[in-house]
Amino acid sequence: MSGTLVIAGLGPGDDALVTPEVSAELAAATDIVGYIPYVARVADRPGLVKHASDNRVEIDRAQHALSLAAEGRRVVVVSSGDPGVFAMASAVFEAVEAGPRQWRDLDIRVLPGITAMLAAAARAGAPLGHDFCAINLSDNLKPWAVIEKRLRLAVEADFAIALYNPRSTARPEGFARALDLLRQTCAPDRVMIFARAVSTPEEALRVVPLSEAAPEMADMRTVVLIGSSATRVIARDGPPLVYTPRSVPV
Amino acid sequence: MSGTLVIAGLGPGDDALVTPEVSAELAAATDIVGYIPYVARVADRPGLVKHASDNRVEIDRAQHALSLAAEGRRVVVVSSGDPGVFAMASAVFEAVEAGPRQWRDLDIRVLPGITAMLAAAARAGAPLGHDFCAINLSDNLKPWAVIEKRLRLAVEADFAIALYNPRSTARPEGFARALDLLRQTCAPDRVMIFARAVSTPEEALRVVPLSEAAPEMADMRTVVLIGSSATRVIARDGPPLVYTPRSVPV
Repeated sequence: MSGTLVIAGLGPGDDALVTPEVSAELAAATDIVGYIPYVARVADRPGLVKHASDNRVEIDRAQHALSLAAEGRRVVVVSSGDPGVFAMASAVFEAVEAGPRQWRDLDIRVLPGITAMLAAAARAGAPLGHDFCAINLSDNLKPWAVIEKRLRLAVEADFAIALYNPRSTARPEGFARALDLLRQTCAPDRVMIFARAVSTPEEALRVVPLSEAAPEMADMRTVVLIGSSATRVIARDGPPLVYTPRSVPV
Repeated sequence: MSGTLVIAGLGPGDDALVTPEVSAELAAATDIVGYIPYVARVADRPGLVKHASDNRVEIDRAQHALSLAAEGRRVVVVSSGDPGVFAMASAVFEAVEAGPRQWRDLDIRVLPGITAMLAAAARAGAPLGHDFCAINLSDNLKPWAVIEKRLRLAVEADFAIALYNPRSTARPEGFARALDLLRQTCAPDRVMIFARAVSTPEEALRVVPLSEAAPEMADMRTVVLIGSSATRVIARDGPPLVYTPRSVPV
């Protein structure tokens, strides 16, 4: 097999957050495959074929990309953020495992990117500065009971927590239930950060105590960061600085 | 205050993984502050002052950087990986909070980078493709009981797990204890990835079942990834592909 399949992370939105490694692969590709708004981020040029598809067809898209690579094309599957964090890389490997044996012999590479929680954390200060976890709040692909159990254990472990895909119009109730669970298990002053569309023109950042958090503060372009019990807010004239100390006192 | 302080992530080692945003700040800096090997990664040029210091002096280094910025310098504190993940950003904010009031009015910005677990995961496939957590195994700054509790709860939540700073010559026993705990709580075929110095000439990747994992497989330049119970290994002629499926069956 001579084709190659690269699964590349475009970061959260700003081109200044795309790694040179990813830019080089985009420049060498014959085919770009991905969700419509991410494919749109790649500049047109002669000889480049763009295959944009709608959301929620990840496995079809992965199979299409693998078929193109098996034909000898140089294919880049684009994800926002990091492709290995709630994005296209797992879908591609699911398709590889279920697909024809020869797909395993393709040159397949994953190129990391700046995932949403890191971009959001950087804007706020360093809220993920100590042990933390990342939970996808979408229940499209897992039962709500699993999400709830993980959230409960994450609070018990006193991790800082990043919630991806907190809320969509198709399932507005999940994040409200998550907030209820947090209110039962955390102090009212637990720090929450709602980071929307970081590094894009629509960027908006909001730091509130849990007691003031509301479901409407999140949408599908928001990543929600929840501090650990030790997370601190430094007040100042500008936006506050939020950080989690590196140490846990004995 | 006219000085600026940027806390920038250099990624795991390869310059192709440094974001253009970070490169631009390095090019505009008057002063670079950081741990010796990270400062060494920034090219010398006329007018640039480099302040390299040894490990374990993070607060001194942060105070020095803030003092320089307060004098009006344009300072970049460099971290490897992402500065907000077990790196310099939290130390700087600890110093800000404890320091003179005027430090809060400095222009302080954190620029994200590719953190070690994302680079390691990309090399292996997509082992962090579902909910996951990151735990710093160094007990310099927290009691071992906290580490053990978090690891136990992370396994109970069935997170994929990234272990940072798993093992140093000063504290060789912690990672061995972590392996013991994993053997008590996970199946022997739980997937483990030892990723050393990813993206550098010393890169080495090893995928083994928990039953074959040994403390000596890790050192301070290694990040250890532990799959969830659902993590899969796709065998092929080359190195195996490791991924965690996106879905949890009902």
